[in-house]
This record gives sequence, structure tokens and C-alpha cells, in this order.
Amino acid sequence: MGMSEQKVCIETSGKILQSPCGPIIHGLEDVLVKTTSITDIDGDRGILWIRGYRVEELAAHGSYEEVAYLILRGRLPNRRELQEFSERLKASRELSPAAVEVLRSLAKAHPMFALEAAVAAEGAFDEDNLKLAEALRAGRYKEEEKALAVKVAEKLVAKIPTMIAYHYRFSRGLELVRPRHDLSHAANFLYMMFGREPDPLAVRGIDLYLILHSDHEVPASTFTALVVASTLSDMYSAVAAAVGALKGPLHGGANEAAVKSYLQIGDPSKAKEVVEAATKPGGPKLMGVGHRVYKAYDPRAKIFREFSQEYVKKFGDPQKLYAIAEAIEREVLSSPYFQQRRLYPNVDFWSGIAFYYMGVPYEYFTPIFAASRVVGWVAHILEYWENNRIFRPRACYMGPHDVPYVPIDQRS
Amino acid sequence: MGMSEQKVCIETSGKILQSPCGPIIHGLEDVLVKTTSITDIDGDRGILWIRGYRVEELAAHGSYEEVAYLILRGRLPNRRELQEFSERLKASRELSPAAVEVLRSLAKAHPMFALEAAVAAEGAFDEDNLKLAEALRAGRYKEEEKALAVKVAEKLVAKIPTMIAYHYRFSRGLELVRPRHDLSHAANFLYMMFGREPDPLAVRGIDLYLILHSDHEVPASTFTALVVASTLSDMYSAVAAAVGALKGPLHGGANEAAVKSYLQIGDPSKAKEVVEAATKPGGPKLMGVGHRVYKAYDPRAKIFREFSQEYVKKFGDPQKLYAIAEAIEREVLSSPYFQQRRLYPNVDFWSGIAFYYMGVPYEYFTPIFAASRVVGWVAHILEYWENNRIFRPRACYMGPHDVPYVPIDQRS
Repeated sequence: MGMSEQKVCIETSGKILQSPCGPIIHGLEDVLVKTTSITDIDGDRGILWIRGYRVEELAAHGSYEEVAYLILRGRLPNRRELQEFSERLKASRELSPAAVEVLRSLAKAHPMFALEAAVAAEGAFDEDNLKLAEALRAGRYKEEEKALAVKVAEKLVAKIPTMIAYHYRFSRGLELVRPRHDLSHAANFLYMMFGREPDPLAVRGIDLYLILHSDHEVPASTFTALVVASTLSDMYSAVAAAVGALKGPLHGGANEAAVKSYLQIGDPSKAKEVVEAATKPGGPKLMGVGHRVYKAYDPRAKIFREFSQEYVKKFGDPQKLYAIAEAIEREVLSSPYFQQRRLYPNVDFWSGIAFYYMGVPYEYFTPIFAASRVVGWVAHILEYWENNRIFRPRACYMGPHDVPYVPIDQRS
Repeated sequence: MGMSEQKVCIETSGKILQSPCGPIIHGLEDVLVKTTSITDIDGDRGILWIRGYRVEELAAHGSYEEVAYLILRGRLPNRRELQEFSERLKASRELSPAAVEVLRSLAKAHPMFALEAAVAAEGAFDEDNLKLAEALRAGRYKEEEKALAVKVAEKLVAKIPTMIAYHYRFSRGLELVRPRHDLSHAANFLYMMFGREPDPLAVRGIDLYLILHSDHEVPASTFTALVVASTLSDMYSAVAAAVGALKGPLHGGANEAAVKSYLQIGDPSKAKEVVEAATKPGGPKLMGVGHRVYKAYDPRAKIFREFSQEYVKKFGDPQKLYAIAEAIEREVLSSPYFQQRRLYPNVDFWSGIAFYYMGVPYEYFTPIFAASRVVGWVAHILEYWENNRIFRPRACYMGPHDVPYVPIDQRS
């Protein structure tokens, strides 16, 4: 990549705000902030590639451990590499006593606040994190530091499920369940959370969820992680900040809203009426329909639809969530209104149903999203640090200058 | 401001990375992300305006409370408004028991990690913060919610000094000192930290520091706060994330590095040699010299230089910090090397000396920066929410597509 000083022109389909200093691309839509070799999305065709692999292939054959290795190292592991990687994750699952205390203190907090605080807390005591931050401060980021950065990244992937499970236990006044070394990443998470041997289909559901959300280019949470990391702060602080962004209802949390809307709808027979109402001006929005990038059927939605079907076939559908979702989807897909606007059910439309039936409380839906996406956050940081530059945009000043200072007793 | 869809051209003096998807402005240098009426900087002339007032006027006449009111409300308060505002800040100084417990758990952590965690923790229990987040989630941001947002913003301004002081007390194994209602924002902070009636000149030094760092447009920490807030997460999460960014050595922390370098230099007589060494290729960098925006003498540096002089006149200069800094500054200002490159001493060059002599430990320098800048962070959030759009830039994908999935036992 070459470097020069010049005028840069950007094509955007986003909204442009005119200001006296020049145009502002609102929300930086379509503005490139980095290159990446992690993820590509073809929103028109509804394709998601992770390190060049179609996400549905990874979901069909792989585990979260395999995909996390792929994302962090750029290639799929062989059996020995995968086993060693799994061992490293297992060895890093436990938290520092201080982070456990933080989670205990925040038993009554929403788990996303608790997760944000716990990640920052753990970062203060992870010696590798501090050593890496010191090296970065001194301007060193060579092979040794890069290897250390991957190690810190792996630890974050290992620890976030523990933080979530511990918070769940504290919030319910239950004894902590320590990580079990013989269980996979997904199985151990369910085991630590609920304290019992998890059902294999539930494990598969969590594993699928973790795989499918592992990276998605640079949405607001990943971008937050990058801005923080660009100051050479430290990896945990960047991830804690990303958790804060994921918490926002415009980012994470849509699968919770979708499930709640199905519960409220109550019966598949109402689907037609609900979808029609959503086409009216000012009508209620359909949850989990439409996406800023996908203008086709979200490939992840298809996988979760199939999984949800399998799940309710085995465990039943007492609240008719699957049946309601299926009926709504059918109406949406056959509606000219949604077809013209290229609004399709997205991953959130389908991903909450199994969580609900597994007994995962709503407020833990987004933390599990964080447990998956953490690998994308840290992988993007690793990429950005290869050629770091602090993010320092500008704002256009619209106010007065040299206002005379009036002493306080002369102010009206 | 009008809106349309079009090609946008941006002039930048920053580095441009060429990618297959188009140019990338590295670090978003000179890219406009919002309009503002808070702060303007004329880097060429070395002028900083806050709400249109020259910062030196505010520093000469005002208090942090007055400047914080100005930043949050857009105009200077009259005496009654200032008193009511001060009362509200005083009434909000105390923390929730959970946040106190978090700080206690993190007694041995670097205070910036502890501050990041404590802000997130407090956010989970501030009912106004949660109520505001709920309203935003529901798409409401009218007069009532805007008033609530200012209230939450004020609480953050009030509470951060308490978090810092409590952490200091815990870290030293000392009893907490509760906030004192009869003291100003700056005086109360020193009182809570050190547990004794603070010296008036030290109070003035902290007050000046808080005034001069209260806002500076959209550096990385403010931008982080904006990205998080743009997801409609919540104000505390956005501020916690900003703390994580401020922690980075490329952002906060330069005044600590400056003081340490003076201590290492040891004597004013070495200034010439040190400054000359810094002009050599690969030579040691001078701390607190040069700035990404200021290409002239930083107006804030002048104020701190004068204050430091006054401070050491009263309390002495046993480590010769003022004398060393003055000698280095003289050499820098008369050096053709620095003149040509328009590198001047910046605010960090002078702002650490008084902190050092007050007995503020190095690791609390950046937390005090946060205690000041918090008002800028929240004010920029309030502006951005007036016309919110989630930050969702793009990355240019450089990797392969449709890589065939090889079963694990066939991988080399």
C-alpha cells in the first residue's frame, strides 16, 4: 500500500450532512477504516466468508474452537493444533480473584454492565496483557510481541464465557460452578451456567451461535475496539469498550426483541395481520427483519432456522415460537412491500428461539453474543496494530468565536 | 443541514492507504464525523475556544464548575444557576455501594482499569441512566429525555473524582474520606484523596487542570464515547469506554512521561545536550513537545507554565523540575530544527510538575485527566444524540473467497 497526501473521494449510499467545513458522512457509512483478511460480506447475494470459507461450511463441519483458531491464525488447525489450542483455552478459563469479586459486587447489575466491568478488571491482572501494553508503549511490536498479543487474545476468548456464567450464578444466589476441563468451549459454558451436564443439542445450538457471530467486519462494537486499541491502551480495555457498544439496542439485542415479539403475537394465525400492519406508515416494526448490509436472505438465519426446527422437534414448542416465526417469515418473503425494499429475516429473527427454550434469560442473550464476537474484536485489533494509527477525526465547529467574558454578577 | 446521496471528497493532510476498495484515510485524519458547538481549535495560531470563549479567559476568571456548566448548557451561568449546579454536583458525589465494592476489589489494579470498571458498575445502578437508556431504546429523545440526559451527564461529572479518590484510598489501605459538602469540586477532590484540608494553591492547580482539559473536540477518547453512544447503549458505558481509550499512551499519559524525563535529566545544565540529541535521527524523543493539532505554542501550556512557576515559588523546586522544563523549553523555542517542524511545548510539557510536587502519584495523572474530560465526553454525546446515527464504517477485504473446506484429518 502506498502513501501520499491528497484529496480522497468516497462513494457512499449513506446520508451526507452538509457543514461549513465540508461534507460529513453520517455514521461513517461506507467509509473504509482498514483492510482486513478476516471477513467478507456480499450483502447483495447474502454470503458471509470467514477467512475465505463460507460460513455455512464452517457451521456444518466445525466447532467454535476451530473457527476461533481460524480467525486468530488465518488458517484451519490440524488435529494437533486444534487440541493444543483447546488446551490453552481450557487453561485460561479461570478468572483472577479480583474479577470474581467485581462480578459478585455486580450480581444485581444487568450482565452487560457486569461484563464490561469484569473485562476491565481482569485486564488489570493479566500479566501478559500488561507486558504487551508496556511493549506497545515503548514502540515495540515485533514477532515476540505479536505472539504475546495472540496469547492475550486467546485468553480473552477463554475467559468471557466464565464471566457470563459466574455473573448468572451470582445473580441467582447460586454457588459458582468451576470450569470443567473435559468439556468443549460451548459445553463448558452451559455447564458453568446451569450447573448440570448439558444436553448435546443445546451444546450444538450454543456452538452454532458462537460460530455464526464470531466476526462480521467492522460494526460499531468492533470499531470501538479498534479506536481504543489505536491509542495503544490494552486489549482488555478495548474489549471492555466493545462490550459497552454491543450493549446498544441498535447493535446487539435484536434477537431478544424478536423472541419477545413472537411471545406477544402469541399465535401463527396472526402472522398475516402483523406483517400487514408493519407495511403501514407508522406501523409497528417487525423485529429481526432487514439489515444494514444484507439485502438478501442472511446466510446465518437459514442455519438457525434449521436448528430451531430441530430443537423444537426434540423439546417441543409450547409457546409456538418456531411456528409463529415461520408464519411471519412466509408472509414477509411473499410480501411485495418487503421484496421491493429488500428486507429479509436476518440472523436475529431465528437465533433467540432456542436460547429461550434452553432457559437462557433474555438479559444473557447479548452477553453470549459478546462471548462469540470477542474473537472478531481481538483479531481486528491484531490486524490494526500491524499498521497502527490513532483514530483522530475532526468535528466541524459551528459556534461563535471570541465571545467576551462577562463577570458572573453581570450575567442575566 | 441538507441530506442527499453522493460522492464525498475529503481533503486530508493525513496518510492515505490505497486499497482495492478505494482509499483509506489512516486514523480518519481530517475526516469530519459531526458538527459541534463546544470547542474550536486554531492549531496554526494556537487558540482554543470553549463555547466561543478563549480558554485563557475561562482559566483566569472561572472555576471548573462554571466551565462544566458552560460546556453542558452552552452559556455561562449566573450566580444562582452556578450555585444550583454546584449543589447538584455535590448531591451526586457519592457512589453506589456496588461501585465502591468494585473499587475495593480493584485496589491493586492500575487506577485507569479501576475507573473503567467503576464507571460501568455505577451505570448499572443509576436509575436515571437506565431510564434514559430505556427511552432511547424506545426511540424517544424529546425535551424530557434531553433534560434527563443532562442530569445523567452531571452525575458522571460529579462522581468520577470520587471514584479516583476512593481508589487511591483503597490502594494505600486507607479509610475512605467521604465527600465534603462545603468544598468546591477541585478542593473536595484533593480532600477526599489526601484526607486533609487542601492548600489553596493546590486547589487552584487542580481547578486549572480541570478547566484546561475539559474538552478538545474529538480525540480518540471522545470519538470512542461517540461510537458507543451511537448504538444507544448508555452514557456510563460510553464514558467507561472513553476511559479505556484515554489510558492509551498515544492519548493520555504524556504529562507523566514529561515529568519522568525531567527527573531523569536531573539538571537544567543538560537541557542543551538533551534537545540537541532529540534532533538526531533515531535520537530520544522530547516528551510533551509537538501536537497533532497545534502547530503553535499550546495556549494551555502557557497557563501551566505560569502556574508551575507560582507553585514552585511557594513550595520550592527540590527536583529542579521547573528549572529543567524551562531550560528545555528555551532550547526548543530557539532551535531551528523544532522551529521548522513547528514543534512547540504542549500542555503536557508543563501540566505534570505541580501534580508531582502535590504528591499525586504518577498513575493518578491520567485519571485526573478523565475527571476533567468527562464533561467533554458527555457534552459531545448530547450533541450527537440530537441527530444520532450508528457508526458503521467498512473494511476492505483482501483475502480469498470460497476456499474449499478440508476435513481436519486431511490438513497438514
